[in-house]
Amino acid sequence: MEYRNMTRGELESLLAQEKEKYAAIKSAGLSLDMSRGIPARKQLDLSQEMLGILVSEEDCEGEDGRDYRSYGLPDGTPEAKRMFSYITGAPVDNIIVCGNSSLNVMFDTVARNMLLGVSKSSEPWSRQGNIKFLCPVPGYDRHFSICETFGIEMINIPMTPEGPDMDAVEAAVRDPLVKGIWCVPKYSNPDGITYSDETVRRFAALKPAAPDFRIFWDNAYIVHDLYDDGDSLMDIFAECEKYGSADMVYMFVSTSKITFPGSGVAAIISSPANTAYIKSVMAMQTICHDKLNQLRHAKFLCSHEKIKEHMKKHAELLRPKFVAVCETLERELAGTGIAEWNTPRGGYFISLNVCDGCAKRVYNLMAELGVKLTPAGATFPYGNDPRDRNLRIAPTYPTIDELKKAVDALCVCVKIACIEKLLAK
Amino acid sequence: MEYRNMTRGELESLLAQEKEKYAAIKSAGLSLDMSRGIPARKQLDLSQEMLGILVSEEDCEGEDGRDYRSYGLPDGTPEAKRMFSYITGAPVDNIIVCGNSSLNVMFDTVARNMLLGVSKSSEPWSRQGNIKFLCPVPGYDRHFSICETFGIEMINIPMTPEGPDMDAVEAAVRDPLVKGIWCVPKYSNPDGITYSDETVRRFAALKPAAPDFRIFWDNAYIVHDLYDDGDSLMDIFAECEKYGSADMVYMFVSTSKITFPGSGVAAIISSPANTAYIKSVMAMQTICHDKLNQLRHAKFLCSHEKIKEHMKKHAELLRPKFVAVCETLERELAGTGIAEWNTPRGGYFISLNVCDGCAKRVYNLMAELGVKLTPAGATFPYGNDPRDRNLRIAPTYPTIDELKKAVDALCVCVKIACIEKLLAK
Repeated sequence: MEYRNMTRGELESLLAQEKEKYAAIKSAGLSLDMSRGIPARKQLDLSQEMLGILVSEEDCEGEDGRDYRSYGLPDGTPEAKRMFSYITGAPVDNIIVCGNSSLNVMFDTVARNMLLGVSKSSEPWSRQGNIKFLCPVPGYDRHFSICETFGIEMINIPMTPEGPDMDAVEAAVRDPLVKGIWCVPKYSNPDGITYSDETVRRFAALKPAAPDFRIFWDNAYIVHDLYDDGDSLMDIFAECEKYGSADMVYMFVSTSKITFPGSGVAAIISSPANTAYIKSVMAMQTICHDKLNQLRHAKFLCSHEKIKEHMKKHAELLRPKFVAVCETLERELAGTGIAEWNTPRGGYFISLNVCDGCAKRVYNLMAELGVKLTPAGATFPYGNDPRDRNLRIAPTYPTIDELKKAVDALCVCVKIACIEKLLAK
Repeated sequence: MEYRNMTRGELESLLAQEKEKYAAIKSAGLSLDMSRGIPARKQLDLSQEMLGILVSEEDCEGEDGRDYRSYGLPDGTPEAKRMFSYITGAPVDNIIVCGNSSLNVMFDTVARNMLLGVSKSSEPWSRQGNIKFLCPVPGYDRHFSICETFGIEMINIPMTPEGPDMDAVEAAVRDPLVKGIWCVPKYSNPDGITYSDETVRRFAALKPAAPDFRIFWDNAYIVHDLYDDGDSLMDIFAECEKYGSADMVYMFVSTSKITFPGSGVAAIISSPANTAYIKSVMAMQTICHDKLNQLRHAKFLCSHEKIKEHMKKHAELLRPKFVAVCETLERELAGTGIAEWNTPRGGYFISLNVCDGCAKRVYNLMAELGVKLTPAGATFPYGNDPRDRNLRIAPTYPTIDELKKAVDALCVCVKIACIEKLLAK
């Protein structure tokens, strides 16, 4: 029965029950951090052998005999470019392999465009007044932090089951001050939505007023399927070819959630013109990135098949966790009308919408129980969820047992917060 | 006999002799790249065991049990901070350990100051008009490239045997648009000069008109002595304490020429206020740097003594090369009055000044022989050596045999270029 159809008396009695459960959980004591999308130790162990691959002098030689311990190859090793080509399908010439963090590559890309413009002949973004970025919401807080750091105004774009609301995107890019959009096109953070073909097509076909508008295509979960038949994301570059819009897209990928979050390899993939320009600036920024770590990764993730097989092992560890969360939500909250959630087929998160005005209260109730969720609001620019309803569940790090306890507790907190809201009306 | 005191006939006959030697060298054929300061393979082998240090799951744990394969510690691991404290003497709290490249840290530091200012309350450099940097010359081309990339005007400051001409520096910083100076204070690139105590003191005591003036103290060769009694550089931070000027200095160090040039670890060391501010921005830029590589390094370079012992092994490989170059220069050019050079006690370069207007000609003559030197002019901002006389010799990569041949050839080229110049007068 939907809670909104209950009588005051029914709600009050339900609230009392849930508060009893809450007190019991509290006295049992929980201590859990579910705030970030962190792989579990067992997932990291899957890549442990990689660290033994590269030990001797000979191990450190590239395929052309070059000594990778030394300087050189600022845009990455051919082996690592090939690895990212296996992952993304992009041609190696459009790939620049960087350091350990795709977030760092994104930050640097915005900083470069701010200071120097998107190309040699382009006006720096920082000299064009109050520029803006479009932010599909809910979204990834670290994207928003980059904009906030540089004082770039953020405009919310609602997410739909097909991806960002493209009507809203198409309307917004008519403003020449709109310079970019953040996208996590596959298994979006936090919704777990994979953009539909139609959405990708409309992105490729965009005609922004700003010639220096750029799509930040953060393909963080490109091979991170939970099931054998993972979602398929259309190749945006192939679509862009049709519209002559390839310069509009930067794709970012990394091995952070394939091998080691702190010691992976990241890459930026773009058009030949963008790639040439980025290389020219990067050559001033560094002599080279860590080629030994690139080689270590390329030897470990040595083929398309090897990567697929490796990601299956991750899926086997992750799938039961996602299933546990969704089953508990289903059991406790289905039909109540106080919560909606997604059932993602990949990625790192489950997005939960509760009654308007209740997310912060749920976050605080959980914190009091000893469970740290991603702060309510974090999935929106400026930490401001206008409806205060979205919560991001990160199920990857805890054990299944911990997770079940945490989500049980979460359901209790959601009920308490929402019933209180209903009673206050 | 000094060449300028020779008769025309004597010069002509000498030129003919040298041209014969040149032709002989040319027909023998050389092929050598001496353009950059690259460690030789044997030097890299000194650190090879480091790659075997960190293989098992347990190896990847930090001293507090944290899993360094995962996210966290954006400002570096405690172990790596301690390593840089052994190297620099700085307190660990003032050290931020970053990725593999100190050049990258310097570039990012300039970019951050351009976009966001030197502190939270400071005006970004990019909004203050035509800002300027002081560049002691000859200097490091990659420093100059950073300024050129961001359109920062560069002002030459002459080097003296004590370091930069401090009268010129003190005069220049009266201009509030002067925001920084590039320094390689120990075994400077390319002069091999270590700044005197008086120079360091005057830096610490600087009273620049710009409150956001910063000294970029690139301590690239801090432990890179060729002899047991290496030069000693005064601790600028200790001096700054006396003048309340600690916020004025950023120190940069890296293990690029201690372990592996492409896969080392870099750090920025600064005052508590600067460190806190840099951390706050860096937390937006990346979740963390590569902690496994930090740990690998910290385990390998585990004490002050171990670092000293390790650098002695480098010195044993490098010293004979520096000696070979200087002996050849001495034998061939001493007393000719057409060349001056330094005899550094550490670092990576030997700086050679030839007659005014001859450096480019020497570079080209060498290139025709198959020896690539650092381009003439590269040691000056905008690649413009106003007297066209400075050449940078990078003796570290070639074998001693190659080096002797190359410097023999260099002396022939210097003689040809300078005699031609004298005859053209």
